[in-house]
Amino acid sequence: MPQYPSAIETLIESLRRLPGVGRRSAERYAFAMLDWQEQARQDLAKQSATLSQEVRRCEKCACLQGPKGCNFCQSPYRLQTQLCIISSPKDAYALEETGQFRGLYHVIGAPLSPLDGRGPDALELDRLVSRVRSLGVEEVIVALDSTLEGDATALYISEALQSLGCKVTRLASGMPMGSSLQYVDGNTLTQALIGRQNLQHS
Amino acid sequence: MPQYPSAIETLIESLRRLPGVGRRSAERYAFAMLDWQEQARQDLAKQSATLSQEVRRCEKCACLQGPKGCNFCQSPYRLQTQLCIISSPKDAYALEETGQFRGLYHVIGAPLSPLDGRGPDALELDRLVSRVRSLGVEEVIVALDSTLEGDATALYISEALQSLGCKVTRLASGMPMGSSLQYVDGNTLTQALIGRQNLQHS
Repeated sequence: MPQYPSAIETLIESLRRLPGVGRRSAERYAFAMLDWQEQARQDLAKQSATLSQEVRRCEKCACLQGPKGCNFCQSPYRLQTQLCIISSPKDAYALEETGQFRGLYHVIGAPLSPLDGRGPDALELDRLVSRVRSLGVEEVIVALDSTLEGDATALYISEALQSLGCKVTRLASGMPMGSSLQYVDGNTLTQALIGRQNLQHS
Repeated sequence: MPQYPSAIETLIESLRRLPGVGRRSAERYAFAMLDWQEQARQDLAKQSATLSQEVRRCEKCACLQGPKGCNFCQSPYRLQTQLCIISSPKDAYALEETGQFRGLYHVIGAPLSPLDGRGPDALELDRLVSRVRSLGVEEVIVALDSTLEGDATALYISEALQSLGCKVTRLASGMPMGSSLQYVDGNTLTQALIGRQNLQHS
């Protein structure tokens, strides 16, 4: 591994903190930044330094706040009886894009992952339970990643909410739209079969 | 495309300047940075802001300078008669790793690419020619990417140096070490055949 000047090395170490960026990508990014205009580097510096002041998170749902506060919690047009559990504020934007959900959100952070030291405490379920109670939520929709950790977390949340009498649902698993049966993996196909839907009008 | 808070949007625009980073990767990076420790964001800010002051480039070869000036141009142990042309200071580290080259370097920047507005002027061949003359270079090794643009640039450089009477060589094309004949593309195989090497001792 070559030894670059120390300013480059420390920059590489910083860039490696980005998700999915290994040593080689970070090296490539660092040297590309060296070729940027001075203004571009100063812009990034300022954006990074002020990010946490500029982007405020809602105290209730932990989504990102707009200039006038939380777009969700403060909106009079959103259903207070549906609560969608997501792991990142980014997920709210993806769900809003669908136009299918008009309730409120609740960010719980990354799913349970004991190996990474993320135990049940990290989910802050007390906060969720008291929110479900005070809002009078009728349905909690768990919208976590369709992974082993996501599934385990969904089950855990569903058990924690059992005594509250609200419905707990999760996103359907199945074939992605536009996918071919031949290329869908076995687990996905299994879930698609188990969750098969009635074509006849009921 | 979702509309994130403006601080996130401007950060995304900055991160998209990194090589190979599109909108989706930049979004992912920006939201990951939101989850970083405050100190990590401040570190990146400082590194980005001070990069051009911290990393100085040699006035002769344009490689990165160490604390005591250019490791190559100022070294008494390096051959002044071999000059290796590279497109980025990063390439010098890769070539040093081989331990096969003991001459000097000359960074000319990205290869010719008329569509991107990189014409012959961008190579600053005057600087190269005067350097070849003043050092008394006997061999110029063109070590550019093995692409259409790299090949065109190598030819262009070789013509510009023709009158100086120095040898101009370029890196060999052929099969990457450890590769299988079945998986090597036709162009590479063609070059490997054309440049085939004698196995008998001469």
